[in-house]
Amino acid sequence: MPGETTAPRFPYASLDGVPPDVREAILEVQDKAGFVPNVYLMLARRPAEFRAFFAYHDAVMGDRDGSTLTKADREMVVTSISAANRCTYCVVAHGALLRIYAKQPLLADQVATNHLTADITARQRAMLDFAHRVNARSHEVDDADFAALAEHGFDAEDAWDIAAVTALFGLSNRVASVTGLMPNAEFYLMGRVPRDRT
Amino acid sequence: MPGETTAPRFPYASLDGVPPDVREAILEVQDKAGFVPNVYLMLARRPAEFRAFFAYHDAVMGDRDGSTLTKADREMVVTSISAANRCTYCVVAHGALLRIYAKQPLLADQVATNHLTADITARQRAMLDFAHRVNARSHEVDDADFAALAEHGFDAEDAWDIAAVTALFGLSNRVASVTGLMPNAEFYLMGRVPRDRT
Amino acid sequence: MPGETTAPRFPYASLDGVPPDVREAILEVQDKAGFVPNVYLMLARRPAEFRAFFAYHDAVMGDRDGSTLTKADREMVVTSISAANRCTYCVVAHGALLRIYAKQPLLADQVATNHLTADITARQRAMLDFAHRVNARSHEVDDADFAALAEHGFDAEDAWDIAAVTALFGLSNRVASVTGLMPNAEFYLMGRVPRDRT
Amino acid sequence: MPGETTAPRFPYASLDGVPPDVREAILEVQDKAGFVPNVYLMLARRPAEFRAFFAYHDAVMGDRDGSTLTKADREMVVTSISAANRCTYCVVAHGALLRIYAKQPLLADQVATNHLTADITARQRAMLDFAHRVNARSHEVDDADFAALAEHGFDAEDAWDIAAVTALFGLSNRVASVTGLMPNAEFYLMGRVPRDRT
Amino acid sequence: MPGETTAPRFPYASLDGVPPDVREAILEVQDKAGFVPNVYLMLARRPAEFRAFFAYHDAVMGDRDGSTLTKADREMVVTSISAANRCTYCVVAHGALLRIYAKQPLLADQVATNHLTADITARQRAMLDFAHRVNARSHEVDDADFAALAEHGFDAEDAWDIAAVTALFGLSNRVASVTGLMPNAEFYLMGRVPRDRT
Amino acid sequence: MPGETTAPRFPYASLDGVPPDVREAILEVQDKAGFVPNVYLMLARRPAEFRAFFAYHDAVMGDRDGSTLTKADREMVVTSISAANRCTYCVVAHGALLRIYAKQPLLADQVATNHLTADITARQRAMLDFAHRVNARSHEVDDADFAALAEHGFDAEDAWDIAAVTALFGLSNRVASVTGLMPNAEFYLMGRVPRDRT
Repeated sequence: MPGETTAPRFPYASLDGVPPDVREAILEVQDKAGFVPNVYLMLARRPAEFRAFFAYHDAVMGDRDGSTLTKADREMVVTSISAANRCTYCVVAHGALLRIYAKQPLLADQVATNHLTADITARQRAMLDFAHRVNARSHEVDDADFAALAEHGFDAEDAWDIAAVTALFGLSNRVASVTGLMPNAEFYLMGRVPRDRT
Repeated sequence: MPGETTAPRFPYASLDGVPPDVREAILEVQDKAGFVPNVYLMLARRPAEFRAFFAYHDAVMGDRDGSTLTKADREMVVTSISAANRCTYCVVAHGALLRIYAKQPLLADQVATNHLTADITARQRAMLDFAHRVNARSHEVDDADFAALAEHGFDAEDAWDIAAVTALFGLSNRVASVTGLMPNAEFYLMGRVPRDRT
Repeated sequence: MPGETTAPRFPYASLDGVPPDVREAILEVQDKAGFVPNVYLMLARRPAEFRAFFAYHDAVMGDRDGSTLTKADREMVVTSISAANRCTYCVVAHGALLRIYAKQPLLADQVATNHLTADITARQRAMLDFAHRVNARSHEVDDADFAALAEHGFDAEDAWDIAAVTALFGLSNRVASVTGLMPNAEFYLMGRVPRDRT
Repeated sequence: MPGETTAPRFPYASLDGVPPDVREAILEVQDKAGFVPNVYLMLARRPAEFRAFFAYHDAVMGDRDGSTLTKADREMVVTSISAANRCTYCVVAHGALLRIYAKQPLLADQVATNHLTADITARQRAMLDFAHRVNARSHEVDDADFAALAEHGFDAEDAWDIAAVTALFGLSNRVASVTGLMPNAEFYLMGRVPRDRT
Repeated sequence: MPGETTAPRFPYASLDGVPPDVREAILEVQDKAGFVPNVYLMLARRPAEFRAFFAYHDAVMGDRDGSTLTKADREMVVTSISAANRCTYCVVAHGALLRIYAKQPLLADQVATNHLTADITARQRAMLDFAHRVNARSHEVDDADFAALAEHGFDAEDAWDIAAVTALFGLSNRVASVTGLMPNAEFYLMGRVPRDRT
Repeated sequence: MPGETTAPRFPYASLDGVPPDVREAILEVQDKAGFVPNVYLMLARRPAEFRAFFAYHDAVMGDRDGSTLTKADREMVVTSISAANRCTYCVVAHGALLRIYAKQPLLADQVATNHLTADITARQRAMLDFAHRVNARSHEVDDADFAALAEHGFDAEDAWDIAAVTALFGLSNRVASVTGLMPNAEFYLMGRVPRDRT
């Protein structure tokens, strides 16, 4: 519920005013999640950017043949990178997805605060180390980074995936912060308690 | 429950092996909270440091005659500073206390990620701005910082309080990180859902 | 000509192997520029990302009704941000476009090295200051940043544009750096000398 | 003599106004040192913090059974960390103690400026490297840091000691800087010249 | 031509007003280059500094018996360091010299943007890595840095040379930036196109 | 006495092996100071650099007609900048000169640790603020910096002086650190005690 937090800098789009395909996408996520994540209503103000963003999102967050990255892995990258970029919307929203996909209610808070001490596997640690290199010092990425990933079974295409997820959410973090987007109240508790108790 | 996360670098003290006053303090917190926060069992390995830390804690986290800082304010400082220092134990444990004292289930996640966009008052924003100055660049603190606090009704003694809380938890963050302390599982959910539902 | 520089970390797509719409887009740019910018051949390895990237590109780099940003302005943002992120491909390629759109052969080198001393207008300086805030410290962007833009006639939608261009090329910088993309030799000299002499 | 330097931001406590145990402690240090270090008169404004600070101080700066850290080692950590945190009071006061305990009149200035080039042993270098990790990047401390210490005979309890000294003086640096504390004139020359000449 | 860019903060010296040896030096470079680089006219305001600077320049940029550094190597160091220090004058002027000495028209733009991905030899990469250490973190330079150079045939005297070039242009970058010096228009295109075409 | 500290990375020049003018300069400083500062014996290994460095030194550290900078002011800049660059040789040697010229035995330690809290005048504070801008972020120096100096009576030529001193000792700091130069033992105590007592 946007009203619970500081209003964003830009007014949300109204469903009546957006092109049919955008409205369709919004109604679909509402059906699935039970609410409309604020980022949909913000990006819908600019339909071309809405379409491009979600097309990019689907391209890098969905499954890829041969990929060794799970949905939880991808959301873990998003949560960790978004925390480094200090984007509250993305940390809270994708932290929720991470808890759900990983089925680990404690994981997101750990990853968001300090991935170096989080209860994750050595493979996930390598994945996040690479993501943080790409996020903070992409100009220094070199063969040693690819070799460190390879030690954990990530091939070059997996490296591309991790980099692309990192880069896309670096974009998303910046847009969310500049537009003053805050997370829907629903996200905060998702994945923390057994379904039947919420 | 320590067992749920990576074991710390130092074994916890056993209740049988600690001096009576330390055991007393531990049993008291267990009575009150229903579990023993891991920091108690870690510091109890060194009784003199245990006593000094909690004496300092009580001196700066408790009420002071004339203070304008609420318990929620103090826990907000701890949560925000601990996030800057990336100490998972302190962010999760004191984030829980912040939610409880402030009776705001969404507040801790916002403050931990980016206090600049959190749903807090202008007065709290000034308090946290000062705390971050003290945490990150104490050598630059000057009269302008005190003046900025004064605009929101914080006098010099309040400034001391904010600085002392910041400094003590800077210490706590470092000790927790070096000892590999992770938060008890209980903390993660505290203050997020109505009492009768947990 | 890729062969003139270090080979990228990923092999370029071959025109024969890409979907028709991707091939179409590549042939079109070749027609227009006389060569295929390497980023096209790299992204074409992943058609869905190719399409999403260029859709985003067209959405934020093209004209917008009511926008006060010229094509040169947008390329100036890209050049300056890409230099901050130290992405050689983007600095050289978009520096070329900046020279061409601005019809100022000296501008790109100045903007890439230090926008604070470049021969630009106060309005462009404000635009680049905002872009660098978004690029480096988006979590600190606040109303004062929007007010600083407004002093130079940039409204909130212009601010969104600048932020979106910055964010998209932050993505592009990271992908180019991770894939080891280097600029085509053609870019280096474009816009530096009168047409009839090259 | 406080009067010789800029006055602190808070007035010193007067001996008449402090609780007996605090006065006792102050008179004792005066007896021993010949003057009252300013930090005593500043902290005495808040007796509970005074007691907690010096209890912590005695717990981590005094001897510990089995510790391999000498008094000079501990003061070297304090001097080096305080210089990193740019706290003039602590650098000058503890630099004096370092010169005295180490019986090396040149050591403190070297350690304060750059511990990497100071005339210290490889063991002391490892100790200071660890202290600076804890001071500046405690969230990154990991097993490799403990292993580096172990190569020089420091066990895990020694590591705790170094971390605790670092953390306590990180607190002290912040309190001293915020209160505007400057060193007593006496400290500057202590340990620089043979006793009979001062 | 100074007039093409923002005027510097200090007026250029006039040839009539400078001592004969300074005028001589200026006329000599004009003869050789076809124009007077702005740095000559700026430093000539202070003849003693003019003489000392160019004496230092000749001492470290010229040949040294036994040196393995070519003129192109030295200009590569200057270009790369000046870009790190964001000095437009030095990047553009010495980038021109680098292109000419190395006979590689694309090299300077690559080195200025990111030396880690530039098309240079492993030996040049080691040289630039050392230069950047000296430029940004000289207090951390240690034996490992000299050993890394030695692996590529650089002896200790070569290390001195690289450090001296780096240090001198660190000085030059600061003086140029403070005086508001901008590059002559002639520099931008030098070495980019075959002689007979410019 | 070099022998008291870690040996430098390069052997000192022997007086027999240096050109007559260099030997002359060394004997002169020995006459005046009673010892040969190590930097003379190190730079003498390279006579052309020795001459250029001291020519630059004399040009910017000596008096200038119309300058408002005292010798103590200049040494204060050197001490403060050298501490920021963490060059032990320069901090200790020029800290000694600062104490002597300013006739203030406590000043150098304060300026070296944190110029923001040192017992200096507002005019000296402005001078050091400018010097640190030039040292750390010369690319950001702008008219506001000159205006801040002007408020304290520093004209543009004084600004040049401060910048030149800063830039020259930035060079000196780097050369001293790379060559492993450590201060002569004599410097540490100079200016700390009345003449007749040392």
